[in-house]
Amino acid sequence: MNVHGTHYRTIWLKNDDDAVVQIIDQRPLPHKFVVEDLTTVSDVARAIKDMHIRGAGLVGATAGYGMYLAALHAPKNAPEAFTAQLIAAGETLKATRPTAVNLEWAVQRQLDAIAAAGDDISAKIAAAKTTAQTIADEDAEFCRRIGEHGVTLIEEISRRKNGAPVNILTHCNAGWLAFVDYGTATAPIYAAHDRGIPVHVWVDETRPRNQGARITAWELNQHGVPHTVIVDNVGGHLMQHGMVDMVIVGTDRTLYTGDVANKIGTYLKALAAHDNGVPFYVALPSSSFDWMKRDGVKEIPIEQRDATEVKTINGQYGDDVVSVLLTPEDSPAANFAFDVTPARLVTALITERGICDASEDGVLGLYPEKRK
Amino acid sequence: MNVHGTHYRTIWLKNDDDAVVQIIDQRPLPHKFVVEDLTTVSDVARAIKDMHIRGAGLVGATAGYGMYLAALHAPKNAPEAFTAQLIAAGETLKATRPTAVNLEWAVQRQLDAIAAAGDDISAKIAAAKTTAQTIADEDAEFCRRIGEHGVTLIEEISRRKNGAPVNILTHCNAGWLAFVDYGTATAPIYAAHDRGIPVHVWVDETRPRNQGARITAWELNQHGVPHTVIVDNVGGHLMQHGMVDMVIVGTDRTLYTGDVANKIGTYLKALAAHDNGVPFYVALPSSSFDWMKRDGVKEIPIEQRDATEVKTINGQYGDDVVSVLLTPEDSPAANFAFDVTPARLVTALITERGICDASEDGVLGLYPEKRK
Repeated sequence: MNVHGTHYRTIWLKNDDDAVVQIIDQRPLPHKFVVEDLTTVSDVARAIKDMHIRGAGLVGATAGYGMYLAALHAPKNAPEAFTAQLIAAGETLKATRPTAVNLEWAVQRQLDAIAAAGDDISAKIAAAKTTAQTIADEDAEFCRRIGEHGVTLIEEISRRKNGAPVNILTHCNAGWLAFVDYGTATAPIYAAHDRGIPVHVWVDETRPRNQGARITAWELNQHGVPHTVIVDNVGGHLMQHGMVDMVIVGTDRTLYTGDVANKIGTYLKALAAHDNGVPFYVALPSSSFDWMKRDGVKEIPIEQRDATEVKTINGQYGDDVVSVLLTPEDSPAANFAFDVTPARLVTALITERGICDASEDGVLGLYPEKRK
Repeated sequence: MNVHGTHYRTIWLKNDDDAVVQIIDQRPLPHKFVVEDLTTVSDVARAIKDMHIRGAGLVGATAGYGMYLAALHAPKNAPEAFTAQLIAAGETLKATRPTAVNLEWAVQRQLDAIAAAGDDISAKIAAAKTTAQTIADEDAEFCRRIGEHGVTLIEEISRRKNGAPVNILTHCNAGWLAFVDYGTATAPIYAAHDRGIPVHVWVDETRPRNQGARITAWELNQHGVPHTVIVDNVGGHLMQHGMVDMVIVGTDRTLYTGDVANKIGTYLKALAAHDNGVPFYVALPSSSFDWMKRDGVKEIPIEQRDATEVKTINGQYGDDVVSVLLTPEDSPAANFAFDVTPARLVTALITERGICDASEDGVLGLYPEKRK
């Protein structure tokens, strides 16, 4: 994806120093573009927890690089101490964001790769580096394929509308900046735009952290995709009036039964889509599937974040990005970060292997190796 | 209602000068408490349009006082010119907020009262003053009665929960500050709190103008009612987890068939309530009924406001209230101010005459004089 005309991924090893991981710090976006260096696993844990980076795929890729940095700095003379430190690093990373399944997945993949590399510590470090890069490359490639599959849905609507712009509503940022490249929900949109299919995106601002208004709008803007920012309250009204042709969102964890955990408020949009006959799609790479749990509302842990994120908001004031208070100083606030959309409200899942029903049969049809 | 211990209404004639209407300017709340003088119909139109005041009942009461100020300043020597100016003032006032039915209602009530006062101009002015005060007094009294009827619903849930706090979700501000006193959605809550029934209110912040986070939270805080501010995305998740016992909202226009126009996002909460078996109530005085239209989604005009309200937000920064930019500078935004909740999603209406089904039969049962 391009930023001011230069190609970027969201995470990479520094050009002349592969002990340094570089990320785009998403907090000051869209007002400032800042690249940050990470050199230790604590740097990485803080970057995930405090949301310098966020988004299902990027959280996983960053955890992968975090495990590589942990390996670089672990004791070199004792294999048990090395492994113990890596396991501890994995626990630290997994504790940063409880809802994102990609975290667990990336940490486990690194631990398996490091174990499989034999007893030689330098081989283990090399394996951790390769695995971190593979996780990132796969993430980008899987997102590209999600775009290839998802664009067929947009093409179909475009044909039905005789080429009038296809109106797509999205919530939060399941865009390029939530992954290593392309994004999931946005991948079909970028693919359509690049093929000359007219699209227009309704961008939910996505309170409390405004990933839509800040990040999705910025991404679409950089890529030249027509879009309009709306507050999270508007989608239902637009759907009642035929102004939304489809909804595409991402997910932080989707059960193999089809229940979808995503940014808080997704469930409300799925209800409105269902009530108005608007198709509701969830785009995800297989790393976002949870192959164990069956009931999303009952079983998926929902992260609660600090009330400050609700009571205040960051915005540009003159040349600075400042935080302003929105509520009475002494009113309490609660901050649930995700909700669960039951499978019955999801039209289909768009994965790197193709499109399937949001059901156990649908998902296991695409991923037969996961049948128990 | 008390503000820092002093009793206030939201609109009144200045103590020593009845050519001056005073209001609480709601824009700097909760950070600053400001009383503003209005002396002309243009002052009043600006105060309504730019939302120094807002809310169904208060918009109506303010229009009532606006017509009184118009009468005060209309030509005194020619009854036709006087009447023409009053009609023009009414058109100006009605054009400020197209969705609020109370505006039309208050303007028409004033025109009727002024016409009925005969040909004497000073009698007409006196009638306009009396009518403005009557509209305000009735608004407060009707809200008090809504509280008396609505509190029975809270009492019933409280009994069922053996006195555990009743969790009530509300959207926007249908509180004291949206009316002349008490509010509609909040009237049963204040009544319950004052009777010692434990209640806790989930306050939707209500983007874009944050009437919930700013005004409802401030009101409840002043009155000592336990509450928690949440972003508009959260309600569905809370309902999925049994954390909401009932929803009470206000309305800017409710059709006699039961369709409810209210602040944008209300429809999404009604869908979630319906999906989770949570009762969804709409509280309103009869001045908010539209006795003509039958189909809310098709027939109620939905106000679109300036995109600036979406792209920026006001908050306290140091000692000042400032506006900060939330989106990329050049991303467009759309700002639909209301949506329509179909009657099928509304459990019941709470009016000054009692509680009724959100249906033609239910409403006309309480207001038989409106049968055609």
